[in-house]
Amino acid sequence: MANFDITPLNKLVRGPKRASYDREQIYDILDGKFLCHIGYSWQGKTVVIPTAYGRKQDKIYIHGSLKNRMMLSLTEAGEACISVTHLDGLVLARSAFHHSANYRSVNIFGKVKNIEGKKEKMQALKCILNHMVPDHWEYVRHPNDKELSATMVLEISIDTASAKVRTGDAVDEKEDHELPVWAGIIPISETVGEPVYDPLLPDTIKAPESVLNYVKNNNP
Amino acid sequence: MANFDITPLNKLVRGPKRASYDREQIYDILDGKFLCHIGYSWQGKTVVIPTAYGRKQDKIYIHGSLKNRMMLSLTEAGEACISVTHLDGLVLARSAFHHSANYRSVNIFGKVKNIEGKKEKMQALKCILNHMVPDHWEYVRHPNDKELSATMVLEISIDTASAKVRTGDAVDEKEDHELPVWAGIIPISETVGEPVYDPLLPDTIKAPESVLNYVKNNNP
Repeated sequence: MANFDITPLNKLVRGPKRASYDREQIYDILDGKFLCHIGYSWQGKTVVIPTAYGRKQDKIYIHGSLKNRMMLSLTEAGEACISVTHLDGLVLARSAFHHSANYRSVNIFGKVKNIEGKKEKMQALKCILNHMVPDHWEYVRHPNDKELSATMVLEISIDTASAKVRTGDAVDEKEDHELPVWAGIIPISETVGEPVYDPLLPDTIKAPESVLNYVKNNNP
Repeated sequence: MANFDITPLNKLVRGPKRASYDREQIYDILDGKFLCHIGYSWQGKTVVIPTAYGRKQDKIYIHGSLKNRMMLSLTEAGEACISVTHLDGLVLARSAFHHSANYRSVNIFGKVKNIEGKKEKMQALKCILNHMVPDHWEYVRHPNDKELSATMVLEISIDTASAKVRTGDAVDEKEDHELPVWAGIIPISETVGEPVYDPLLPDTIKAPESVLNYVKNNNP
């Protein structure tokens, strides 16, 4: 897969050694989460909101209600910025100045398109649900016409993207290595617990493969 | 503590039952994380970036290099929007439409001030570090003049804020309860591992109380 072009918008100027424009790495970071933070402008003010997403090839899909301020503002703007971040650890240095975090983050800039066709909308919703829990879409009841009409779906093209990744140990000043101060990493990760059965379920219904696989694949 | 005023900017219109303007709850959500997503406008485009923060009373502090595009853009704009999100679980319903997530999120809107006084800057950096790892500031080497001059610190006043919180089970249509489909919650949480010692540390240096407490207090 070809790298993303480097433009003034996505070029990492601060900490360029941590930058990546590699499409495979960027998709990998995107596929490891389903919650992004998306920015939009509302009456001249910048607003940031967390929202669920799905990725299919070079498109991101999000959904919301027809009257959702974010959805309407993004449609009007015609473009969006999305940030997805995995926090991997705290990096504790000997000096306050060199404290940092290990993380993998991606920024996407792209055009926004309101998906209106019924079939395309259904496909996008399938993408979002399967992005959260792979293969779960086929297991659940699909949206009916009323639900579909009440849902707005936006497609955001991944036109410009960059990743920023920090890994490894603290980087202290050489002279600080003599200090009697501990340094190291505190690992941080997102973990998934055992599925909690809905209290209204009859005893006969067990969690499906998609749920069991999700739990298995998201635990070390 | 008094609630935040409800204005058109922070008023939750979608899902108002999940809204809270309670200062204590909002501070609690902010204090449970140290990574926020902040939005800024750059050449007419909205950009979202993850960054570390600290909170002290009704102020948020962030820091970066003097040439950091985000820091400069926020200073120029004079206002900022910050989003902090705890993801607590996937909510899997019997119908695709009612899938959701359990989460606690906060949005802040406030004025941005560049902290230039040496003493105030030092206090803000202390706030950020102790927000990450409580009581760690006194343990490490403090910034010297050169490091302090190379750091830009912004104070963001928490003028307007709202929380959005979803908890509990899936909410399906009544008729869908008859479906032979599993529903439930997959709990998700951020967990902290054992501290990893820096390879350059001599054997005599052990992890300090602040680090041990952090690990202890961030594990169930």
